Amino acid sequence: MRENRVIHLEKNVDIKDPIMIVGLPGVGHVGKLVAEHLVEELTSIKLIEIYSPHFPPQILVDENSEIRMVNNEIYVCKAEKHDLLILIGDHQSNTTNGHYELCGLYLDLAEEMGVKTIYTLGGFPTGQLTHIDEVLGAVSRAEMKSRLEEIGVQFKPNEPGGGIVGASGLMLGLCKLRGIDAACLMGMTSGYIVDPKSAQSLLKVICKLFDLDIDAGPLEERAKEMEKIVARLKEYEQQQQQQSQIMPEIGTGEEDLRYIG
Amino acid sequence: MRENRVIHLEKNVDIKDPIMIVGLPGVGHVGKLVAEHLVEELTSIKLIEIYSPHFPPQILVDENSEIRMVNNEIYVCKAEKHDLLILIGDHQSNTTNGHYELCGLYLDLAEEMGVKTIYTLGGFPTGQLTHIDEVLGAVSRAEMKSRLEEIGVQFKPNEPGGGIVGASGLMLGLCKLRGIDAACLMGMTSGYIVDPKSAQSLLKVICKLFDLDIDAGPLEERAKEMEKIVARLKEYEQQQQQQSQIMPEIGTGEEDLRYIG
Amino acid sequence: MRENRVIHLEKNVDIKDPIMIVGLPGVGHVGKLVAEHLVEELTSIKLIEIYSPHFPPQILVDENSEIRMVNNEIYVCKAEKHDLLILIGDHQSNTTNGHYELCGLYLDLAEEMGVKTIYTLGGFPTGQLTHIDEVLGAVSRAEMKSRLEEIGVQFKPNEPGGGIVGASGLMLGLCKLRGIDAACLMGMTSGYIVDPKSAQSLLKVICKLFDLDIDAGPLEERAKEMEKIVARLKEYEQQQQQQSQIMPEIGTGEEDLRYIG
Amino acid sequence: MRENRVIHLEKNVDIKDPIMIVGLPGVGHVGKLVAEHLVEELTSIKLIEIYSPHFPPQILVDENSEIRMVNNEIYVCKAEKHDLLILIGDHQSNTTNGHYELCGLYLDLAEEMGVKTIYTLGGFPTGQLTHIDEVLGAVSRAEMKSRLEEIGVQFKPNEPGGGIVGASGLMLGLCKLRGIDAACLMGMTSGYIVDPKSAQSLLKVICKLFDLDIDAGPLEERAKEMEKIVARLKEYEQQQQQQSQIMPEIGTGEEDLRYIG
Repeated sequence: MRENRVIHLEKNVDIKDPIMIVGLPGVGHVGKLVAEHLVEELTSIKLIEIYSPHFPPQILVDENSEIRMVNNEIYVCKAEKHDLLILIGDHQSNTTNGHYELCGLYLDLAEEMGVKTIYTLGGFPTGQLTHIDEVLGAVSRAEMKSRLEEIGVQFKPNEPGGGIVGASGLMLGLCKLRGIDAACLMGMTSGYIVDPKSAQSLLKVICKLFDLDIDAGPLEERAKEMEKIVARLKEYEQQQQQQSQIMPEIGTGEEDLRYIG
Repeated sequence: MRENRVIHLEKNVDIKDPIMIVGLPGVGHVGKLVAEHLVEELTSIKLIEIYSPHFPPQILVDENSEIRMVNNEIYVCKAEKHDLLILIGDHQSNTTNGHYELCGLYLDLAEEMGVKTIYTLGGFPTGQLTHIDEVLGAVSRAEMKSRLEEIGVQFKPNEPGGGIVGASGLMLGLCKLRGIDAACLMGMTSGYIVDPKSAQSLLKVICKLFDLDIDAGPLEERAKEMEKIVARLKEYEQQQQQQSQIMPEIGTGEEDLRYIG
Repeated sequence: MRENRVIHLEKNVDIKDPIMIVGLPGVGHVGKLVAEHLVEELTSIKLIEIYSPHFPPQILVDENSEIRMVNNEIYVCKAEKHDLLILIGDHQSNTTNGHYELCGLYLDLAEEMGVKTIYTLGGFPTGQLTHIDEVLGAVSRAEMKSRLEEIGVQFKPNEPGGGIVGASGLMLGLCKLRGIDAACLMGMTSGYIVDPKSAQSLLKVICKLFDLDIDAGPLEERAKEMEKIVARLKEYEQQQQQQSQIMPEIGTGEEDLRYIG
Repeated sequence: MRENRVIHLEKNVDIKDPIMIVGLPGVGHVGKLVAEHLVEELTSIKLIEIYSPHFPPQILVDENSEIRMVNNEIYVCKAEKHDLLILIGDHQSNTTNGHYELCGLYLDLAEEMGVKTIYTLGGFPTGQLTHIDEVLGAVSRAEMKSRLEEIGVQFKPNEPGGGIVGASGLMLGLCKLRGIDAACLMGMTSGYIVDPKSAQSLLKVICKLFDLDIDAGPLEERAKEMEKIVARLKEYEQQQQQQSQIMPEIGTGEEDLRYIG
């Protein structure tokens, strides 16, 4: 298997004015949690499976001990005004070149299905364990901002300062080159753990954006479990701070110091 | 040498209703030990040598100081009802893409020879030095389980939790896409050392599966040598535990915490 | 996106006897700082954008939260005798092969535009935090040295001892194979931090080379900010030296010890 | 530059019954030192330069500050009975696939020039700083051993136990597949430093093999310099041993423990 393999499962589904939502694994798995939650809670049909030699050589085992190869998948979910094409997956590409190849492939598929706008979902790493109920945005075209600001998305100049790495960023970049409208919506998250609480914040914004009424219950439950772990991490962090000798803080907040060798 | 090279050594061997067994290096070398043991103990003919630019650039030296390039090899072994095609080798692919390419190649060869079922052999890492006499299974199709349960293979929902990585996993995944029946059989092993004891457990299951009567003697001897080393490792482990400060245990057993950044 | 993508933005710009200047990210970002400063201070037109699957899969966010994909860009700047084609960028290639491919592409573009001489700008890592106001040179053809020595460039036998790694080196090597005159000009820099002070030294040389009269003000300001950080780093370094046990110094300055395994 | 580039410098050199000697950088740079010494001491003509996108993106600077791209080169040296084609270079391939591609290319060139036997030179890492005046051999065909034993080459069953990695190993492997006679000759060396003393041992064997009378003076001088450094390293090693807590020695000398995960 030297090439990506795209398997179309349903060929006769009628797709109405579709918008693509991308939720692949990434910082805090925030985007993945939200996108998978949408697929579970909405009426959804799996349209496409994508296998690739750029994914890790790995299989996953289900509750019946039956396996499947790691992949990315596209579902269609029926929403009010638009159909949502939701891209989820087990992994992002394992290689630099593979990222470009796969994101290009996803956009080819999106364009074939008539997609004109794409939202990629992700996490913004704050480095802080305390939850911030905010969603940060970045857009391929400045005109997209006002609609998103109306539903509560924050825009901050030059943020994230280190840019956006991986599929949720690259998809936006490739969209811009192709003239497709695209925005990245990021839940605030520590960056240390899977973060269903940040996913809840992001889900609220998505629901407003598409007039959806979705039960956040399962995410809430996972968030509660996670809070216990966060509490222990905070405790550990405090201990460490008391013990450690402090390195002089160099260049904090000073953009010019970011140094790529 | 830019491409894989397949050398057919014996072209006129009659192969009867063949089943493929894959035992490449991996966790505890359990699969490799069992597959090599089968090749040694059964009447076997080497059919195919596979060389690849995805293998490490390495040669091995034999007892006569004669060298050979690292490779993978397929033997045919005459068993009761089926001929066994046994794939063994010095290494797995060095690269992600190479894994997909080579596993695809192995399946091409298997299909050419009429293989309809494949068993990949591996180790399941327990993280514990104490031996567990169990074999865990995963299958490409749930219907395969009952036959394997009869001969003592255990099936546990969603286990291994992290999936199966490398050729023994990927072969199953690719088999499923091609509609070939495949199962992975894993001996329990610490994951720290080569484990002939785990290989003995796995060999017992293989013997039942194919009505084979094979001397486990050489594996037993190696297992005995290994036990001395395991004893010393356990001792060292205990010392370390007494000395080390204990990190708070975060998320043990909690699936949700597995985090791929 | 499997291939590099070259976007020509301005096709009708008249280019007069052009010389190429390359300032990509590297040691101390010295070359990047100088090249970007030239683009900002001179009348400049962006000619070309280059996107590549060998760059990291990353986008950057501007002050309006609008994104762009990481890239390399070529500007034309009108100078006295020559037009300057200035190559700047966010990143160098992520892969070994990509370095060769991209540098080859840059030279194809340069040759199409009639470039006969190329200067690559970089930093020479001294390992010392104290600033040295010197510019070191290396050339594709020894005859190039006298002109550069006149304007203050230093040439030292076999320096840098480890050669020059990355685009600023490779471009010179490929130029030599194609018969294009090329020199690398390196500001002295610690190698630990972004170094606008070293960039000032290098800028002075560039101004002499092309009879340019450029305000170094913005670089000076950044240099002043940086000095505070350097002061703190020096302090920290001293503390560390007092605390640390000293490894015997092996082979300092002895060329023969450089050992590539 | 996406492909390897072979530049033939001398096309009309008459080559008589040639034997190839390969001395690329590797363990202790033993092979490189010997091969370069042969090129310097014998009447030699540079025939071929090889550039490759698999080499590091790097240039080297000479005593006149003139640069050249890292490469591999083939010289012809006139010896008694045979012409020697000596392959030397700055680097081996940076990538796994590149190793296979380049070694294949070297053999294509060798075969074009009529080479029927190849000797690759390398170092055998002992892990001990004390010099051992021995040369270890490995061969593509057992019949080659007797001639080499006559001139003092040692052959030890299954040594080196970990095989031979890199070009000096892979060339032998590829020779075997093509039916070319090949041997690897290894000087004993610590594996920690460049080792001109080991190179002297290996040079002696090469001189006997080809009836050469070569001044080992320059190697001797470098060996003397090196001895001072070795003395200091030994001192440092002793200090460390006295201070360090001793990890239990696990599996030393026990072949079965070599574990490739």
